[in-house]
Order: sequence, then C-alpha cells, then structure tokens
Amino acid sequence: MGGTGKINTNPPGGTRDFLPDQLERREEAMGMLQGVFASYGFQRMQTPAFERLDILSGKYGEDEKLIFKIQKRGDRADEGADLALRYDLTVPLARFVAEHRGRLPKVFRRCQIGPVWRADRPAKGRFREFWQCDVDIVGAPPPLADVETILVLVEALAALGLEEFEVRLNSRMVLAELMNACGIPESQRQIALIALDKLDKVGSDGVVKALAERDISPPAIERLLPLLKASAAAVGPAAEAMLRDSPGGGRALDELQAIQQLAAPLLKAGRIRFTPLLARGLDYYTGMIFEVYAKGFNSAIAAGGRYDGLLAMFLKGQQTIPACGGSIGLERVLEVLEKEHTVAPTPPAQVLVTLWDEAARAAALGLASDLRAKNIAAETYLDTDGLGKQLRYASDRGIPFVAIEGPEERAAGQVQVKDLDSGVQVPVSRADVVDFLCGQLENSSAPRSGPAG
Amino acid sequence: MGGTGKINTNPPGGTRDFLPDQLERREEAMGMLQGVFASYGFQRMQTPAFERLDILSGKYGEDEKLIFKIQKRGDRADEGADLALRYDLTVPLARFVAEHRGRLPKVFRRCQIGPVWRADRPAKGRFREFWQCDVDIVGAPPPLADVETILVLVEALAALGLEEFEVRLNSRMVLAELMNACGIPESQRQIALIALDKLDKVGSDGVVKALAERDISPPAIERLLPLLKASAAAVGPAAEAMLRDSPGGGRALDELQAIQQLAAPLLKAGRIRFTPLLARGLDYYTGMIFEVYAKGFNSAIAAGGRYDGLLAMFLKGQQTIPACGGSIGLERVLEVLEKEHTVAPTPPAQVLVTLWDEAARAAALGLASDLRAKNIAAETYLDTDGLGKQLRYASDRGIPFVAIEGPEERAAGQVQVKDLDSGVQVPVSRADVVDFLCGQLENSSAPRSGPAG
Repeated sequence: MGGTGKINTNPPGGTRDFLPDQLERREEAMGMLQGVFASYGFQRMQTPAFERLDILSGKYGEDEKLIFKIQKRGDRADEGADLALRYDLTVPLARFVAEHRGRLPKVFRRCQIGPVWRADRPAKGRFREFWQCDVDIVGAPPPLADVETILVLVEALAALGLEEFEVRLNSRMVLAELMNACGIPESQRQIALIALDKLDKVGSDGVVKALAERDISPPAIERLLPLLKASAAAVGPAAEAMLRDSPGGGRALDELQAIQQLAAPLLKAGRIRFTPLLARGLDYYTGMIFEVYAKGFNSAIAAGGRYDGLLAMFLKGQQTIPACGGSIGLERVLEVLEKEHTVAPTPPAQVLVTLWDEAARAAALGLASDLRAKNIAAETYLDTDGLGKQLRYASDRGIPFVAIEGPEERAAGQVQVKDLDSGVQVPVSRADVVDFLCGQLENSSAPRSGPAG
Repeated sequence: MGGTGKINTNPPGGTRDFLPDQLERREEAMGMLQGVFASYGFQRMQTPAFERLDILSGKYGEDEKLIFKIQKRGDRADEGADLALRYDLTVPLARFVAEHRGRLPKVFRRCQIGPVWRADRPAKGRFREFWQCDVDIVGAPPPLADVETILVLVEALAALGLEEFEVRLNSRMVLAELMNACGIPESQRQIALIALDKLDKVGSDGVVKALAERDISPPAIERLLPLLKASAAAVGPAAEAMLRDSPGGGRALDELQAIQQLAAPLLKAGRIRFTPLLARGLDYYTGMIFEVYAKGFNSAIAAGGRYDGLLAMFLKGQQTIPACGGSIGLERVLEVLEKEHTVAPTPPAQVLVTLWDEAARAAALGLASDLRAKNIAAETYLDTDGLGKQLRYASDRGIPFVAIEGPEERAAGQVQVKDLDSGVQVPVSRADVVDFLCGQLENSSAPRSGPAG
C-alpha cells in the first residue's frame, strides 16, 4: 500500500470492492429482503446519489460534518461545494414525497436498499460507503401502519435465517408522560432522554450520575429510580402503573398497547415487549419507536419509529403527513451471516465447453449457444490450453459439468460429458447432448441461469 | 422552482428520481440483461462509487474536467479534493483487477450495471447520473473472447425486445495497415483517425477537407478516396484488396475475419459487417473494435473492443493483460423501450385486504399474513375509510382482488372476494379464502411476489 513505485490500488478507506462471490451473496440477501417487502405491497423507488447541499443542510445536527461534499465544477472549484452525497435514505425520501406527491398514492409504502456515504472514521464494521435498507409508510395513521412496519422488518430478517426475535417497543408519548409523572419539566426532557438512552451501556448508576450532571432535580431522579433499577420483566408493569395515574399517560399506553396486541400474534418466532425507557437517538420521532434484537447479535439489528413531523420539512405551510418506518442494519447482518455460513463459491456457469484446438472454435461456440438456448449457463474456454488445465479451471471454479469435443468425438458425432463431482465421463451424441445435460442438471442442485442471474 | 418561500425539491440538474413504476421497468430490463450475461458465465463485481482522485486522474484526457470531485472533510475542506465519483466502470475495473488479481480466475468474465457520474451539461437523454452496462473478459486472447463479447451484447439487446441488428466490425490493426497502404506515416495516424471517425456525420467531402487541414499529404488522401466514397457494400472488398497487398495487412484481415466468421452464424437476428473505416474514439483500443446498431435507433446502442494495454496502467512493470469488452447504452435503450411500450402500472400487491372498522384490525392483519404465507402479495388498508374509497384505491393502483370482511361476514365465518376486473364478488369461507385466491391468481396474469420482487 502506498510504497515506492507501486500504485495504491486499494479502494478508498472505508469503502469496499466486492468480488463476484461476495457480491452474489449480498445481492441474494438483498433480493430476499426485497421479496418480503414486496409481499407487503412495499414498492421500490430511487433518488440520486447526491442532492443539492441545501437539501441536506441542517437535517443531521452535529453529524452534518460527516457529509461528503462535492466541489463546484471547472472555474468555480474554488467556490466550495454545491452538492453532497446522500447521508441517509430518509431526507431524500422527504424531498421525493414533496416533489412527487401528486403522482404517489395516498398511502405510499416505499422500500429502498441502497448505498449512503458518511465520512466517519473507518473501523471494523463501520464503513464510509454502506447500504441502508429502509421501509416507510407515508400517509397512514397508527396503529396499523406501525404494526406492519414492525412485522415486515421481522419477517425480512427471518427470511435471511435469523431467529428468536425480541421487539422492544416504546413511544415518545410514553416517554413524555413518564417524564411528567417524575416531575421533569418539558425543557429538560430532551437532555433527560439522552441520559436514559445509555441505560444499556452504563447501567442505572451511570444514568443517575448523568441525570444529576444535567441538573435534573433529585426528587425527579428519585422517582425514576424504581424504573431504572427494575428487571426487564418488571419495568413494564412499573411504568404502566405510573402512566395509568394520568389521562395523558393512559392514552399513550393505550395507543402503544394496541400496536403490541395487534403485532404479537403475527410475529414469527418472536415476542414484543414494552420497554418504557427505550429512547432512540433520532430527534424526529413523534410516536412509537422500536428496536429488533435477534439471537447472535448483541445490539439492535433493525429499528424505527413514527415521525409525523419529518415530511413537513419540505412542505412549507402545508399540513403534516403521518409517516412511520424502519431500517435494517444490513451490513452487520450480512457480516454475521457470512461468518456463520461458509458457502461454496457460486459457480459462474453450469457447463464448461472445452476447446480442443483452433479448428474446434466454431463447434465450441455452437455448443455453448445451444446450451444457453435451453437456459443452461455455459462458459466457453477461450484459449487452446491442454485439456488437463481446462478441467482444473472448471473444477477450481465449481463448474459441475464439462463438455469435450475432440477430433475423435467430432468424427463420431459425439461429445464427452464429464461430471466433475462423480468423475464419471460418458459419450453422448451431439444431437442429444443438450437434452442430456438438461436432465443431469435437473437432478443436481446446480443453479440455473435466468433473469435473476 | 426555486421561487420565493417554496423549497426547490427537484433532484439536482441532470439526475432523476425514479417513481416505483419507472424503477420497476428499469430493474426488470437490467435483470434481463444480467440474466443473459450470467448465461455466458459473466459474474457481477462492484467497486465503490468514488475512487481516490489519483486513480482517475490522467485517464480521460480532456473529459477529465467532467469528473465530480469530493472535498476533503472537516478542517481540510479548503485544501481541495481527494476523492472523485467514478466517471466510468472501466478505470475502476483496471484498479480492481490490479488489486485482486490473485483471487480472480485466470480468465475473468465480469459484468457490471451501475451508475456513473459526469458533470456534463444536462440535455435531453444526457444525464449527470446514468447507468452503464459493461461486460469485459480479462485474460483471454482473440478471437474467441472477442466473439463472445459481441454475441453476449447482441443477445442481451435481443432479450430486451430489440431486433434487426447490424454489428460493424473493424480493428485498430486494419486501420493502421490501411494508413500504411495509403502512405500516412505513424506520426499522423492518430489525427487521421480522428478525421475518419466523423465520416458518418460529415460525409466523404468533409473528411477530405479535415484530412487536408491536418496536413495529410494529397497523394495519401487520393489513395483513401475510393474507400471514403465507396458504398457500405463496396467498402469492405475495396479495403480487403488494399490490405492483401502487404503481409501485415493480410494478418490484420485474417484475425478480423476469424472473429467475423465465428460470430456470424451465431448472431440472432443480425448480421456482422466489416466496416474498414470505423475508428471509435477511445484511445485505449488495441485490437478489434465494434458497434451494434438496431432497428429504431439512428446511432450505435452498444460498442466496444479489445484493449490489451489498458489494464497495465495499475500494474507497473508487469506484463500486459489481454482484455476486451463492450458496453450497452442503457439509458437510450430504456428511453426507446419506454416510449414504444406503454405498460400498465405494476400493481403493488395482488390482494387488498380492506378494513371494515377498528374492531376488524386484527382480522385484517391476520388475513394478510395468511395470504403472504402462501406467496400472495397482500396489502392491508391502513385506515377506516369508507369501503367505496378503499375499492377505488385498489382499482387505481391496479390491485386485481379485494377481500372484504364486514360484521356479517365475520358472523358467518366468511370473506367476500371481489375481482376488480370482472366486478364479480363471491363469499368464500374464511378457512378456504387463501386457497381460493391462490387458484384465482393462478388463472390470472397478475405477478406473484417472490425473491425477485
């Protein structure tokens, strides 16, 4: 890397090249997620890789410094940036809805799997180019949209082979009412939430310390203490008791329980749990919020919530549009799946048509063409190397069958078909060889070619 | 747009938002191309959206000014750019091969369909973000790799519904030998080629004028004249006669004719024609070059060639790697296909499960879940609007079936199934309704949900 004379051919820090096998597995996983999304009526849409800088400015708080900015062109390069790579898929969605609202259905279920770019310090599992995987329902009120957002994400994760899900559910209204019940004024609510959000990491003592440092009054902290110290099983009922003391708390609880009760019976291999101190970082949530945990992961692998205010940011003077959505932490899921399942390399083709000599070129191309016409992926060996080398090439690449047409075979109107798994080689008449290979492949598990690649 | 108070929510100039129907058609077309590529053993790989600036610098000549550059981050924003959005898929491929060569097969067939970015002046059909669609074979000599490159591109275009192809074939060696035969010295060859490349646009008189302006000698122009004035049918034989006069010309012709003769019988609905004055702009071609024309297009829709020198640019001091490839002008093809085929909108789902009232929420979610378990894409109506409004929503969106479960149906253990095409509505027992809809959908042409979305 770097070095003298040698050109640095690494991809830029925090980005990755994907070799065919790696990409195939990623695309397959994304296709499975996409299939589940489609089964719920979510449709794909797409926005450009970059936006005008003013579209992204002022939307991400402190993280705005992580936005990749694009220089003006030509003579104006010195004038700074006018465009920026998208930082997430949500702000572009808001712009998209504002721009195209007249052409979108009243309830717009969209999904999008695509790269975003953040100038974060690269680290293990943290990239500067990574794929987000979002579902959003724009234009529908609670509770059904909230329920389907949770269900579709859990089902998508189950399709990837994850299991034993726990959905942790809360809402911003519940949090507000709990703060009220403890006597934390609205002006301190946000800083109290930031402290609460770290409960998993720093424990109850750490939160108490952080709350005190943020000037939350001692009696308020005292009232929060039973919740902070409660076990996972006890914290829900304790919060419920506090909330039922006020009409606002009761309403917040009712709305959340409607979501929980509708989702619970339909969750595959999972349970949904009221988690009254779950805060989630993003400012823009206004209603329910959730996180999904699964076996083998020590942090949330999907999360989301309701953000009824967000879409108004590009719709000046217009009413708010109800919306909720969620996102799968795709890179982390793929990393774990990759580690758990050592998969064989994807064979690039089902049959290698070998090349005996230069005179056999037309015959080899013709046989490959006939195989493809019957939906068999066929690769022609492109050079006149020795047969042993050609067979090794097929075997190294996991291509299951090899077709050999030497001078003797040609004279006899035959092709030798070798099954590299069993090592069995049989002569088949040229006229029958395509059907013969179709039959052999139907009995094997080799992938077939087709529109999905 | 822009205007007072109203935020500009257009995508940046030269880029596009894709609405679900538009994206669905694009993805479908790309999937078909990908399927044909896979049937030839081409595998997908992927590089990041941006590269270090030095990787792209000095590779595109004058067009380098069209590269989108990314500012350094944080305090170093004033120091200029260090990264740049990829301008094509070929230079990143060269870096990729140099970086990963030890992990790639000896012959690497790669395909890539992905966006590239160019700060061109936006115009009709010319975008700043557009998708390139490349196939390349790295590591194989002529003629078979050249033949398969041409065949796979023509077959991919045929899969999209294009027809009546003409492949125009030439080689850089043929051009060099023709220049020799006319007495144009090597030092003038490049400028002569630039003039020849415009024959289609400016005609033979224009080319003669351009050659004279570039100080090509009058006798040399005189000798080129018969070729410049020949008809499409006559120019090939005329050039052949000139080339056969020298051993180098004969060899150049033999190599090209081998490609032509191997490709011709396998071209589907197309012909391949020796086009001795075809020059193609890109400097890096070293061997055969080709362009593909099709009915309905007045310029080439695919093109490529052999570039045995290009991959050495990141492999200092190492041997050259033979390579050839080609690219489909995807945006133009999609534009024409879109115009010709007015397609119905893609229904987001096969069944709309309506919502009678709040008490019916759990039942509606349950029915949708049961349908999806049988691979039927089902959308739940998320609000308690009147039934008429819900039916209109389904009809507007092209959803073919609607399920209705009102209080009477619930009491009778039934669901009403309405076929929006025929208007026929039948009561079906709740226990049988999933199977009933499976049967109805098998008889209709509505798309099913599945991994491909």
